[in-house]
Amino acid sequence: MAKTKGRVTLPSESNFLKETKELLSRWGADAIRDSDGTKLSDDIKKLEAKIYTTYFVARHHNDFAEKHMDECQQAYLMSQYVLATSDTIEISFLDTYFDQQVKADYIHDPKEWWEVIDRTANEVIPVENWEYDKDRDVVIVKGCTPFHEYTVSFLAYLIWDPTQMYNHITNNWGDKVPHDIPFDVRKENANKYVVEYLKQWLKDNPDTDVVRFTTFFYHFTLIFNNLGKEKFVDWCGYGASVSTEAILAFEKEYGYRLRPEVFVQNGYYNSSFCVPTKEYLDYMDFTQRFVAKMAKELVDLTHEAGKEAMMFLGDNWIGTEPYGKYFPEIGLDAVVGSVGGGATLRLIADIPGVKYREGRFLPYFFPDVFREGNDPTIEATENWLGARRAIMRKPVDRIGYGGYPSLAYKFPKFVDYIEKVCDEFREIYDTINGVTPYCGLKVAILNSWGKLRSWHAYMVAHALYCKQIYSYNGILDALSGASVDVTFISFDDIKQNGIPKDIDVIINAGDAHTAFSGGDIWKDPEFVSTIREWIYNGGGFVGVGEPTAVEHGGRFFQLADAFGVDKELDFTLHTDKYFHTPVEKHFITEDIVEDYDFGEGMKNIYAIKSSTQIIAYSNGEVNMASNDYGKGRCVYIAGLPYSEQNTRILMRALYYSAHKEDEFKKWYADNLYCEVHAYPSIKKYAILNNTDKEQVTNVYDGEGNKVEVTFEPGEIRWMEM
Amino acid sequence: MAKTKGRVTLPSESNFLKETKELLSRWGADAIRDSDGTKLSDDIKKLEAKIYTTYFVARHHNDFAEKHMDECQQAYLMSQYVLATSDTIEISFLDTYFDQQVKADYIHDPKEWWEVIDRTANEVIPVENWEYDKDRDVVIVKGCTPFHEYTVSFLAYLIWDPTQMYNHITNNWGDKVPHDIPFDVRKENANKYVVEYLKQWLKDNPDTDVVRFTTFFYHFTLIFNNLGKEKFVDWCGYGASVSTEAILAFEKEYGYRLRPEVFVQNGYYNSSFCVPTKEYLDYMDFTQRFVAKMAKELVDLTHEAGKEAMMFLGDNWIGTEPYGKYFPEIGLDAVVGSVGGGATLRLIADIPGVKYREGRFLPYFFPDVFREGNDPTIEATENWLGARRAIMRKPVDRIGYGGYPSLAYKFPKFVDYIEKVCDEFREIYDTINGVTPYCGLKVAILNSWGKLRSWHAYMVAHALYCKQIYSYNGILDALSGASVDVTFISFDDIKQNGIPKDIDVIINAGDAHTAFSGGDIWKDPEFVSTIREWIYNGGGFVGVGEPTAVEHGGRFFQLADAFGVDKELDFTLHTDKYFHTPVEKHFITEDIVEDYDFGEGMKNIYAIKSSTQIIAYSNGEVNMASNDYGKGRCVYIAGLPYSEQNTRILMRALYYSAHKEDEFKKWYADNLYCEVHAYPSIKKYAILNNTDKEQVTNVYDGEGNKVEVTFEPGEIRWMEM
Repeated sequence: MAKTKGRVTLPSESNFLKETKELLSRWGADAIRDSDGTKLSDDIKKLEAKIYTTYFVARHHNDFAEKHMDECQQAYLMSQYVLATSDTIEISFLDTYFDQQVKADYIHDPKEWWEVIDRTANEVIPVENWEYDKDRDVVIVKGCTPFHEYTVSFLAYLIWDPTQMYNHITNNWGDKVPHDIPFDVRKENANKYVVEYLKQWLKDNPDTDVVRFTTFFYHFTLIFNNLGKEKFVDWCGYGASVSTEAILAFEKEYGYRLRPEVFVQNGYYNSSFCVPTKEYLDYMDFTQRFVAKMAKELVDLTHEAGKEAMMFLGDNWIGTEPYGKYFPEIGLDAVVGSVGGGATLRLIADIPGVKYREGRFLPYFFPDVFREGNDPTIEATENWLGARRAIMRKPVDRIGYGGYPSLAYKFPKFVDYIEKVCDEFREIYDTINGVTPYCGLKVAILNSWGKLRSWHAYMVAHALYCKQIYSYNGILDALSGASVDVTFISFDDIKQNGIPKDIDVIINAGDAHTAFSGGDIWKDPEFVSTIREWIYNGGGFVGVGEPTAVEHGGRFFQLADAFGVDKELDFTLHTDKYFHTPVEKHFITEDIVEDYDFGEGMKNIYAIKSSTQIIAYSNGEVNMASNDYGKGRCVYIAGLPYSEQNTRILMRALYYSAHKEDEFKKWYADNLYCEVHAYPSIKKYAILNNTDKEQVTNVYDGEGNKVEVTFEPGEIRWMEM
Repeated sequence: MAKTKGRVTLPSESNFLKETKELLSRWGADAIRDSDGTKLSDDIKKLEAKIYTTYFVARHHNDFAEKHMDECQQAYLMSQYVLATSDTIEISFLDTYFDQQVKADYIHDPKEWWEVIDRTANEVIPVENWEYDKDRDVVIVKGCTPFHEYTVSFLAYLIWDPTQMYNHITNNWGDKVPHDIPFDVRKENANKYVVEYLKQWLKDNPDTDVVRFTTFFYHFTLIFNNLGKEKFVDWCGYGASVSTEAILAFEKEYGYRLRPEVFVQNGYYNSSFCVPTKEYLDYMDFTQRFVAKMAKELVDLTHEAGKEAMMFLGDNWIGTEPYGKYFPEIGLDAVVGSVGGGATLRLIADIPGVKYREGRFLPYFFPDVFREGNDPTIEATENWLGARRAIMRKPVDRIGYGGYPSLAYKFPKFVDYIEKVCDEFREIYDTINGVTPYCGLKVAILNSWGKLRSWHAYMVAHALYCKQIYSYNGILDALSGASVDVTFISFDDIKQNGIPKDIDVIINAGDAHTAFSGGDIWKDPEFVSTIREWIYNGGGFVGVGEPTAVEHGGRFFQLADAFGVDKELDFTLHTDKYFHTPVEKHFITEDIVEDYDFGEGMKNIYAIKSSTQIIAYSNGEVNMASNDYGKGRCVYIAGLPYSEQNTRILMRALYYSAHKEDEFKKWYADNLYCEVHAYPSIKKYAILNNTDKEQVTNVYDGEGNKVEVTFEPGEIRWMEM
């Protein structure tokens, strides 16, 4: 590979000039950034590279914040449940919260802004029946029904930024570092302050080329418990964007008042797994518009100062979701985010409305990984190979790293490996950026969120493992680097505009009643018949887990007839189930070499008719099946954690359901650990060994020629058509 | 053991006189019965034993039935789902049924008695929009909404008794044996016929001492498919009791008309797993009253003829459920039923309102078990040891066998074993019948059915294995032979009368939304607070599977706070779960010697508070936990298939939740394969080895003395206090 330069961002730190120069050269980096806990010294700022500087908009300005504690960010929080054993109870509603993060807002009349709810009867308690005691942070409820459970939904001030709090607590910063107080730009003084401060800062930082906004205004919901440990985390949660000002402005615009329960929602806090309510969707739109407008103001100032504006994808990113309607209006130059695998790579790479997108790769240069005796190259290889196949579909424009480079520098093998990665990245980028890769078909992921949650449906905390999600999240990771065009659509999209003409296959995947499966939407006869008709006329439909599931009309899967399978809820236990025999051979499983892995799987799935093709069956349950439905086809899969084999199973399921089996081997490696990416417009294709082991495979080119090839571990081989 | 005689029923057959005499003597039998396919010859009828004769009331009278085909039994059946792809569809509603069992009733106007339902929109189609074609057995629906699914609910005649059909098909009787046509005693001629025929039959059968009614009028729901295989079976189903006469009589009495959908119910057909509707409960009561009255008439005739009336528990038993309100009014002398294990033994033994109860033990003397190379003693031992511990709590009054004794006679070891069983049974019976055994506490099984489904909650087909039930049914088998008093109560019982004073522990066990867990009843604030209050004041509550489950007020288990655990439905995925560590030691698991077996188990159960005592935890999920709630205690168990160890776990859970740990070792064997049954009023206790292996155990008598004892396989040892 020729030595190339650019598209790489290096973290640096003080007293690291010589090594920074060396890394700049070897990795071909053209930008330098600071990190949490590092500062760039002036000598480094003078190097021939763009300088990124982290900028906090709504925290890390305690001089201002301490004078305006009534302009802190707020949240509606729910107390623990309290059981009434007599007619009066006291609810110490802060008991389970971290007093360094949360305090009650008594400035705004609790009687107007709070709610006491009888959760057993599902009734709001009249304000006359309760009092609060400021000194003891207690709500006293009278006239309770014994043995009902009660909660208080209270408006809180958030007095410590949760990201800084996490770093602070984790690193034992103690009294050395003050707590960053987060403030709300919807409030009067804060609103002026953020603009004025940025103006001055832009003047004061002439060396900065790129202002790395970390981030804008509202942190995703991240609340700690009374032990100072994470209590609730929703990477997409709007919890911390609420305020009396927001609610009043909303009321003025929408004509109705948002109750505390709209935010608290039984303690579910509008988890992205809940089918969103109309109120919450309205509130999100309202907040997104406000945030976009306000962020644009800061971005414009940045541009006026001759600098670029880059947004970090995370932390205070609420309202600026890059797949939201108003994001392009902000006018950002760039977005940078962390890459945990293929899906998170695409989450960044596919962002519309910016000039460039940067992926921060793993491992982060922190002592947990860069410790004596550990080989950080292993994590780096895994991260790169997982992301690389996604880059082949849609590259990020830049890659980068974070943390303490002095740590990484102590691992020469790692430095070598990253040098190779940077060169490989630039080679890929220079070859395919802007080139449309060959896509065999177009797939739509269908759920309540659609485009807004592109590539991060099913996410709880950013890219972290969760037992209940990995069997669905694998679908996104599999698709991220596959030769298919992927789109995300919502139930509302289809209700309003029908199914886009160019879609070959729809995927609906999730646990029953979640926003990802869809819940009650599947009781909507018009919607259901739209989907049925589309499949019947030739569409492909792949369901994973509990797709289209809601108990109605004698079925649980509302597309049971199309899937050929349904789930037993015990109501039809008395009906004999006769279809247990898997087909001997199926297109979908032709390549498999490992045991099946359906992750958490799904219990009690059974075939409802003899024509259902059972592909995998175990423990008295169908794990995978296909079924013809009119001219269309459906495939059911119990779960799909990410693996090379499951990627192949999914790809074949998509081609099969789209009746495109004949086209499957067009650009194709029969060894499932390898993949082929083709770029007809530049007459090139690339064969990737996605593993760190040697692989032998037959490779099929687009003209039906087959040749056996051996690949080095992790090899990418470019071929001319 | 002294040789004793009596309380045993022997099956016999023609040409088996000498051997019958021998068996009568060796087994101490005092009654002889015929079986399906056997007839007793005159010489056998003259032996010194009571003669049971099987009597069919509503089938096996084809001379009558063939002349009155309009008086056949009926059922409401649902067609398959038909997808509309245009505005007109044809539904061949009989397609999935067996034409030798089912035919459409065109005598009663289908426009009045049938329903066409749009299952997608959940709407009944106006009768103007459909027609039927008698010749083709087709319903033509016009004005359909494309891509909705439609069904026809039609009234059918059942023209072949399903038990005879099963025997007929299984044994390939072909044309040799005519099909028994089942008729309905609610209809005019049939009503008269059954009375007149019995009168004559009683005269014609002077040798018969006991008329073994097999059974009365309505067969449990058992419908076959177009391949002549079982399609639907519900041992408790009222499906075959319906008729236009019944519906009209019901309307007259109750003032409302029962729609076909009341019976068809989305194709669930009022499965006992569905929370019963008011309409269905009304209909059951209505039918039970009719059946009891009519059965009484036949029983009275039997008595007038100087014979006893015995009811077989099964087949045409609908409306005569022995735990139903009207059963005692029938005046039966006896009930006989099949014993599959401890729970089915108690199902028979606990029946009120008769003079004696007989259990037919397994194996049935049929060639499947009594074949060369097989040892029927193995099944007999298992059956006996499973049932014996239940007999220790409440003995049946008689035991018996069925089938071809000539087959059994070929297995001398088996004949020896049964000889021993018969003597052992009589010894137990003579010692403890009528004696109240020591019960450490009183347990109530709480579900929608209560008493009516005593000992056969969770049943699909009588005593058959089913993947979805064995993890619950194990509770009943465990309790059947345990030193606790067991009662069955319904949600309605509690709503009407509160919780009986003498109950120590309530068990609620089942899958969510079933009649056994309870579904929406747990949204009823009054009901829920009744239960909470009772526990809080000292009650014990044991939940298995998805107890008290309905999503409401932020909880899935409505007693989550009492259990200390809840089930994650994905709506609280964003809430951190911190409690994973099992306690080191717990009263409930002190005796265990095997790996845990929670059967199907339950996914996604987590502890909601630090005070929850996690007893078993695996794969990121709580399997068993306990929690204090006021003065009361709860125990959660993920599933409880029957085993000796699970019996011990359940017993300890009951004692623990009742705060009676101190009393647990009162009459107790620490080896969980042994059990102690005590009878204080006669100053005796018995120690049972429940296995077919030698066991060593410490035995605790009621006064706190402990002694180590070795037991032979299957031994029962009687001790004086």
